This record gives sequence, C-alpha cells and structure tokens, in this order.
Amino acid sequence: MAGEEVKVLSSWFSMFGLRVLIALKHKGVEYAYKEEDLQNKSQLLLQSNPIHQKIPVLIHNGKPVCESLIIVQYIDETWTSSEKPSILPKDPYDRAIARFWADYIDKKFYDAGSKILWSAVTEEREQAKKDFVEVLETLDGAFRSVSKGGMYFGGNDIGFVDVALASFLCHFKCYEAFGEFKIWESSECPCLSKWAENVLEHSSVKEALAIADPEKLVEAFQLYKKNLDAGSKLEP
Amino acid sequence: MAGEEVKVLSSWFSMFGLRVLIALKHKGVEYAYKEEDLQNKSQLLLQSNPIHQKIPVLIHNGKPVCESLIIVQYIDETWTSSEKPSILPKDPYDRAIARFWADYIDKKFYDAGSKILWSAVTEEREQAKKDFVEVLETLDGAFRSVSKGGMYFGGNDIGFVDVALASFLCHFKCYEAFGEFKIWESSECPCLSKWAENVLEHSSVKEALAIADPEKLVEAFQLYKKNLDAGSKLEP
Repeated sequence: MAGEEVKVLSSWFSMFGLRVLIALKHKGVEYAYKEEDLQNKSQLLLQSNPIHQKIPVLIHNGKPVCESLIIVQYIDETWTSSEKPSILPKDPYDRAIARFWADYIDKKFYDAGSKILWSAVTEEREQAKKDFVEVLETLDGAFRSVSKGGMYFGGNDIGFVDVALASFLCHFKCYEAFGEFKIWESSECPCLSKWAENVLEHSSVKEALAIADPEKLVEAFQLYKKNLDAGSKLEP
Repeated sequence: MAGEEVKVLSSWFSMFGLRVLIALKHKGVEYAYKEEDLQNKSQLLLQSNPIHQKIPVLIHNGKPVCESLIIVQYIDETWTSSEKPSILPKDPYDRAIARFWADYIDKKFYDAGSKILWSAVTEEREQAKKDFVEVLETLDGAFRSVSKGGMYFGGNDIGFVDVALASFLCHFKCYEAFGEFKIWESSECPCLSKWAENVLEHSSVKEALAIADPEKLVEAFQLYKKNLDAGSKLEP
C-alpha cells in the first residue's frame, strides 16, 4: 500500500515490541521505529495508548493499535494481498489453537520468566524456574501437534505462535544469568530447542531481533535491576 | 450445518461461560449445555482442557476450544453464512479496537470485580470499588467512540465487546451486595448504564443470561464465600 505511514513505538528490550517487528518484517511492511524511554515516555506514546500507557504501539496512518497480540492480528488482517504470508492459519479451529497457545505464552511464560528476573526472594525464584521449565515442556508437547510435522509452530513457515514466542528467545540468556541455570539442560524439550534454533535462523525473526542482542540484554537488565533496587521503575 | 454436535461445558455463574452462550444464541447455533461441578470436575472437562482445567469449553464435533474470547472468535469464524450476524466488525481497525476493549475487560474489569467479591481486607475491597468505578467510567468513555452512535458497542447490533461485557451484568447485584454500594449511583456512566438496559433486552443476551438469575447469584456467592472461609475452593 503506497503512501502509507507505519510507525512502531517500542523499546529494544521488549519481547512484546519485538513481536510487532517480526510480524511487520514477515509481511514485508516498511516502518519507522521509535525507541521509547520508559522512564520518560513520549507524548506520542501517552496520547496513542492513554489507557495502558505502554509499549508497543503501532500507528498506521495516524491510527494507533495497542497490545502486541492484537497488533499482530491487525497486521495479519491489514496486509492480506496474496504474496504476503498469513500469520494466523485459515481454518477456524487451527486459528483457535494458535490463539490458545499465544494466550498461554502471555499468561504463563511471561510470568514465570519475569519472576526469574525480578524476584528478590530465593524460594520464589527457584519456584519460578520450576514453573518456567514446566511451561517450556508444555510448549514442547504442544509443538508436536500444532506444527503438524513442520519446522515451526506455523508448519512450514512461522505463524502466530512463533511470533508470540520467538521474541522471548533473546531473553533466554537473561533468564539463565539471573536464574543461574541452563535452560535446555534443565528441561526435556527436544522439539522446542530445535524449534528455537530454526526460528532464530528465519529471516523475518533474525532481522527483527537484530536490535536485541542477548549479551547486551543481560548487561541492560543487570543495570536495570540495580536501578530497581535503588527505587526506580522498569517495565520490560 | 446439519448433523453437527455443539456442546458447552460451563457453570451457570460463570461470566466467561455466559459469553459463549450469548455468542451461540446470537448465531442461532443449537447446543447441548453441560453444567460442571467445579468442586468435582468431569473427566470430559479435564480431557478437553488439560492445560487450564477450566470452564468454559466449547466442544464442536468432538474438538475442544478453550478460553472464552477465543471461543467467541471461533464461533464467529465458524458460523459465517450470510444470514448469521457477525460478532467482530469487518474492518481490521475496528476489529483491533473491539479486541482491545474485550481484553481490557478481562484484565481490569474482572480483577476489580473479583476483589470486591472475595477480598477479606476492608481497605482492599474499598480500593477495588474505586478501581471498578474507574473501569466503568473508562468503558463509558469508550462506548461513545466504539458504538458510533448505535445502541451497543457493536453499533446497531451486539458485537464482540457487548458479548465480553454483558455477561458481567448478572453479577452487578453481587458486586453491590458484597461491596455495599450502588454501582450506577456511585459512578458517572450515562452511556454505559443506558447500554446495560438495552443489552439486557437484546434477545440473544436475554436468552443466554436466563440461567444466571442475579438474586440467585447473590445467594450462591454468599454460600460460596462461607465455604471459602471454611477452606474449600471456588473458581467463578
């Protein structure tokens, strides 16, 4: 679509923001990226998402869309010409299954991961590591049925669940550093670990995640944690 | 679609389950309703939703779909013939806006309402009442733009946000009884209070909510609260 303006307000370390970038790259949509300082949010962000005041926001021809999975569906439903790959499957049942697992990632995976990063209580962090491994193993089981024999959750190409989960892979080094464990060695996830290798080599994912170097994320999160301890506020 | 089997596993007091019934009624889909005892869940429920083990579940020709908003979208995408009303709007941006508000209801409205019902701490309950009123007033503001001058969030007929929110109206007497306040007198919601009147008169909503008599809900919740205090478990 010529003459259109697509802008993303996000932060390089946000797994939710990275989902939006993966989806846009996958659809071949050009966009302007605006890095937000979450300690000092822009007027544009506050005006575009007055309810939650959070990143990511996609602004398409001046109209804002908020909440990462809603944005990804908007992208899928907006750029629909035949040469663009679909993100959600066509079949209603497959769509429901994809939405179920994306929702599961938001509810379970994000929570467990965040507690590994931010919990100040050892027992709570250890419990979060167990929960995290359990979630990974559940996703490993899901992969077998959802992927239908393909390399990705979406089958032969990435789909909604891949977009929802791949952005978290940048943070695996953080989970390992803060949780003092090795994720793949601590879990039984033969399918998911192979998926992680494959999806990180997928061109849309690789290009989108280029801004979120895992080593730099560890440094940044360590710095943020220090700031947090000193009383400032973070929203990853 | 002839010869098909549609079953709903739910509980009469679940606002999430009631959403599914509204959507099915609205599409004119015949279904078998199975009331679940949440203290003693059926094998069918546990097998159909092994991940969350929660109601509601829609089983369509033997295939289970879980999570109420995902079920409502599945219903919308499955029964699509021209004489069936659409639940989500056609336009991608309008769809994103409808999804945003449905998600807001799940994240904010449900939480505040639950805290009014179940909080044992007075300060927490008072804060929940304030949050609840704030959420209502936010939805009142949303109604003005989303409804585009119609009687419902969906415009001239009920849509995704109406389905997501209407099922909570049965519980308003519970919120009032447990919170010891009058919802509409405590809030500035001229649009939303009018919407509530209208939507409760809509035939799909009226038929679906017939199983959830507000007075009986108050009695049931009071009984559950006693049981809760005595150590049993409830998942509304």
